[in-house]
Amino acid sequence: MVLEKSAQNIYLPFGDHQGTRFYKQDILSVNQFSQEDLIYIFGVAHEMREMVARVGTFDLLKGKILANLFYEPSTRTSSSFTAAMERLGGSLIPINEVKYSSVSKGESLPDTIRTLECYVDVIVLRHPEVGASALAAKYAKKPIINAGDGVGEHPTQALLDLYTIFEELGDPNGKTVTMLGDLKYGRTVHSLSRLLSLFDVKLNYVSPPILRMPSEIIAEINEKNIPQNETENFDEILPETDVLYVTRVQKERFEDQKDYESIKGSYVIDPDIMKKAKEKMIVMHPLPRVGEISMEFDDDPRAAYFRQMEYGLYVRMALLALVLGKA
Amino acid sequence: MVLEKSAQNIYLPFGDHQGTRFYKQDILSVNQFSQEDLIYIFGVAHEMREMVARVGTFDLLKGKILANLFYEPSTRTSSSFTAAMERLGGSLIPINEVKYSSVSKGESLPDTIRTLECYVDVIVLRHPEVGASALAAKYAKKPIINAGDGVGEHPTQALLDLYTIFEELGDPNGKTVTMLGDLKYGRTVHSLSRLLSLFDVKLNYVSPPILRMPSEIIAEINEKNIPQNETENFDEILPETDVLYVTRVQKERFEDQKDYESIKGSYVIDPDIMKKAKEKMIVMHPLPRVGEISMEFDDDPRAAYFRQMEYGLYVRMALLALVLGKA
Amino acid sequence: MVLEKSAQNIYLPFGDHQGTRFYKQDILSVNQFSQEDLIYIFGVAHEMREMVARVGTFDLLKGKILANLFYEPSTRTSSSFTAAMERLGGSLIPINEVKYSSVSKGESLPDTIRTLECYVDVIVLRHPEVGASALAAKYAKKPIINAGDGVGEHPTQALLDLYTIFEELGDPNGKTVTMLGDLKYGRTVHSLSRLLSLFDVKLNYVSPPILRMPSEIIAEINEKNIPQNETENFDEILPETDVLYVTRVQKERFEDQKDYESIKGSYVIDPDIMKKAKEKMIVMHPLPRVGEISMEFDDDPRAAYFRQMEYGLYVRMALLALVLGKA
Repeated sequence: MVLEKSAQNIYLPFGDHQGTRFYKQDILSVNQFSQEDLIYIFGVAHEMREMVARVGTFDLLKGKILANLFYEPSTRTSSSFTAAMERLGGSLIPINEVKYSSVSKGESLPDTIRTLECYVDVIVLRHPEVGASALAAKYAKKPIINAGDGVGEHPTQALLDLYTIFEELGDPNGKTVTMLGDLKYGRTVHSLSRLLSLFDVKLNYVSPPILRMPSEIIAEINEKNIPQNETENFDEILPETDVLYVTRVQKERFEDQKDYESIKGSYVIDPDIMKKAKEKMIVMHPLPRVGEISMEFDDDPRAAYFRQMEYGLYVRMALLALVLGKA
Repeated sequence: MVLEKSAQNIYLPFGDHQGTRFYKQDILSVNQFSQEDLIYIFGVAHEMREMVARVGTFDLLKGKILANLFYEPSTRTSSSFTAAMERLGGSLIPINEVKYSSVSKGESLPDTIRTLECYVDVIVLRHPEVGASALAAKYAKKPIINAGDGVGEHPTQALLDLYTIFEELGDPNGKTVTMLGDLKYGRTVHSLSRLLSLFDVKLNYVSPPILRMPSEIIAEINEKNIPQNETENFDEILPETDVLYVTRVQKERFEDQKDYESIKGSYVIDPDIMKKAKEKMIVMHPLPRVGEISMEFDDDPRAAYFRQMEYGLYVRMALLALVLGKA
Repeated sequence: MVLEKSAQNIYLPFGDHQGTRFYKQDILSVNQFSQEDLIYIFGVAHEMREMVARVGTFDLLKGKILANLFYEPSTRTSSSFTAAMERLGGSLIPINEVKYSSVSKGESLPDTIRTLECYVDVIVLRHPEVGASALAAKYAKKPIINAGDGVGEHPTQALLDLYTIFEELGDPNGKTVTMLGDLKYGRTVHSLSRLLSLFDVKLNYVSPPILRMPSEIIAEINEKNIPQNETENFDEILPETDVLYVTRVQKERFEDQKDYESIKGSYVIDPDIMKKAKEKMIVMHPLPRVGEISMEFDDDPRAAYFRQMEYGLYVRMALLALVLGKA
C-alpha cells in the first residue's frame, strides 16, 4: 500500500525532540498520553513501518528479552508483541499458562513480577483484574506494558486504533468518527474515544439501546468540547463518516435472544450499504468479527481492519523501542 | 553417519536449475509434486544436512518469522518446524492453544490467517479439518505449509519419508517397499505410496484384513503401472524388502479387543525376525511407536526411524528456504 | 548491587584449569559434584554475571538449540532456562504440553528423547518421576540437564542456592546455615544440605515436629563430620545465623488444619523478628512464598530471595555453556 503523503509529514514536528520521553516508563493507560506524546509515538511507529517494509527485521533490540506474561489467553495480542520483539531482533519468554504455574501455588503478582524481571528487560502483562498492570508497575524495576487488564484498559489497542487513522487518513482533526455496535462493554471504543478527544473530531455513536456509550464517558469527552451525537439512525450519518469503527455485538449481552437476532441483522456492513459512504473513508474493527462486516466487503480499499492489525505491529515495536531507550 | 556416495550425486541434475520453483508457493498436498520437484527439494534438503553437520545453524532466514499455527497439538511436527526455522536463523510465533483464543470467539480461519500474516512471513498450519490448508492458502498472501489437515494430507511427512529412502538407499528406482500395519487409516502410508508411484518401485502391503490399503489408493497407483502386492504373509516378503515401513496399529480400530491382541503380537519387528531381512535395507516408522518395533532392534544399523526424524528437519528447512526464496 | 571483593577472588584457583570438565556431560544429581567442581561452575557463573551486567546478552551459544521438555509445569524454572539460553544467544524449543502430545499416545521417554535430540543440542528435562533424567541420559547422545524429577532431585536449584551464598557472603566455610520450615518434603533443603556438607559449615534445622529433616539425610551429612542441630527454638539460633533458608510449609501436609494454623504463625519472617539477626547475613527462599516471609521485609538488604532468582540465571547460563563446551 502506498503511504499517504500527509502521513509522512504529520509526525515531523516531534521528530527527535523527546529521545528519552518514555525510557524506563510503564505503558498503563491511555490517560497518560498528551497529544504531543501520541504524535511522537506514531512518528516512531511510522519509522518502524518503513524499516519493516525495507528490511523486515533489524537488530535495534538485539539482546533484549521481553516476557509475555498472559494470565488469560489472547493469541492476537501476544502474537503481535511477539512479532514486534522479533522484528526488532529481541527475544521472548512466553508465559501463557499461568494457571498451571507458581501463581496457582498462591504466589502474588508482585512476587511473580519481581522474579520475572530478574530474567528480562520488559514485561507485557495481560491480566483479568482491573489495576493489575498498575500493581505490577508499582513493584517492578523494569517497564510494564499493559496488554489488557480486565474491563479496565488495553492502551496499546487504543494506540493502534488511533495510529490507523493517522496512517490511513492523516491528522484526525476535522474528521467524523462513527462508532457502531456494542458501545457499552467495548473497552476499545471507550479508550479510542478518550484519545480522539485530544483532537478536533466529531463523534457519532450508533448502538442498540441497551448497548449505548456509558454516560460517564460521554460526560468526560463533553468536558473537552468534542461534539458527540447518539443515534440509532445509521443510514443518516454514514455518508458524513470518515472513520467507521465497528465492534462485535455479543449474543450474551441480550436477555432475550430475539432482541439479539433483530439487532444483529440491522448492523451488518456490506458492499451494498457502503455505497452510501464516502469514497475516501475507512472501516475499522478490533477483530475478531463474527458477522458484523460481511466478507464480501474485504476487498474494498476502505476495509482497513486487516491493515489495522498490521499497524498494531508498528505501534508495539515503537513502544518496546521507546521504553527500552532505543527509539 | 557417513553419507552414501550415491546420495551425494542423485540430486545433482537439478542442482540450481529451478531457483525460484517454490518461491511464494504453498505446500498443500503430495499431488503437487513432480518427480523433478521431489529431487530438487531433496537436493536442497541434502545441502541443509551438510550445512547443519558443518555449522549447526546459519543465517539464511535471519529476520524471517514463521507462525506455527496448531489447531491440534503435535509436539513432534511443531518441534521439527521450530528447529528448522531456528537452524536457518529465523524466528517463530508458536500458537498452540487455539482453543482458548480468538478462534474460540467464533473467528473464521480466513480471518485468523489474514491477521497472522500481518506479522509473519510464512505460516505452518495444523488443523483437524480436511481442506483447512487449502482454504487458508486461498486467502493468504504469505505461503502456507500444510502440517496435517485431519484425515487429509500431511505432505511434509511424506516428503521426509521419501527423502529418508533417498539418503539411506539412494534413488528408489528398482526398490521394494513393504508397508506394514494399519494401512487403512494411516495417512502417512497413503501419501508415501502416492509419491513412490512417481518412481519405478514395487509395493507390498501387509496388514490385518480390516486395516487393508483402501481400494481407491490401490486403483490410483495401479494407473501408474506400479506393481502392488497385498498379503498377510509377512515372512515371505521380508527377505526381498528394501524399505520396511511400519505403522502403529491402534487398539481403538478394533471392535473386538481379542482381535487386536492376536494381531498385535504377529507384527512386532525384533532382531530375531529381522535375521530374515537383507543386510542392506532400512526399517522406517513415522513414530510414535507403541510396541510394533522392539527396542532391542534400535541399535541395528537398519533401524532408520530416528534418522528419519532427523531427515524431517532437513526437508522442512529446505521447504522453508524454498517458499521464502532463499534456497 | 556491588560485588563482594571476596566473591571476585574465591573462584580464581579454578579459573581455566578444567576447560572441558563438563563438556557433553549430563547434569543429573548434586552427588556428581566435588567441591572443586562447584567452585569451577560458580567461577563460570560469576563470569556470566559480569557479562550480563556489561552487555546483557552475548553470542556464546549462537546457533545452539535447547529443548525445554517439561512434563509438568514450572514457569519459574523454564523461564530461567529460557532466559539463560537467550542471553547466550541460543534458541529454544519449548515443550510444555507433553500431556497432549505424542507422549499421551503412549510413547516412551527414551523415544521422545531420541526424537528430540535429532533437532537440538541440549535437553532440559522436568518430569514427575524419580529417575526420569537418568533414564533419559542413558539413551540420549546429547547432554541432559535435570530440572527436577519428582521427589528426586533438582540439582540446578541446589547449585543456585549455594552460588547465592558464595556471591552474597563469600566462601561458605565457617558459616552457620539455618533451614526453616518444611524440611521433610522440601527437596531443595535436602540437596542444599548435601552440597553444603562439602564445606566446613554448621547446619541448624528448625521445623514443626512432623516436618523434620529425614534421618537418612542427617546420617549422610553426619558422616562428613558436619555439625547439625535440630531445634524448634528459632529465636535462640537466629542471632548466630549467616544464612537463613526459609521454605514453604504446605497446608496439605497437615491432617489437622489447626496444627497448620498454629505453626504457620510461628515461623513468619518479618522486620521485627529480624532485629535479632546479624546485620550481615542473608535470608533465602526458593519461592514461591505464601506468607512465610512478610512483604515488609523485602526492602531489607538481607532479603536475598529475589537476587537468588537472578543467580539462578547465571548458574544455568554456566551449565549450558559448560555442557556445550563453550565456557
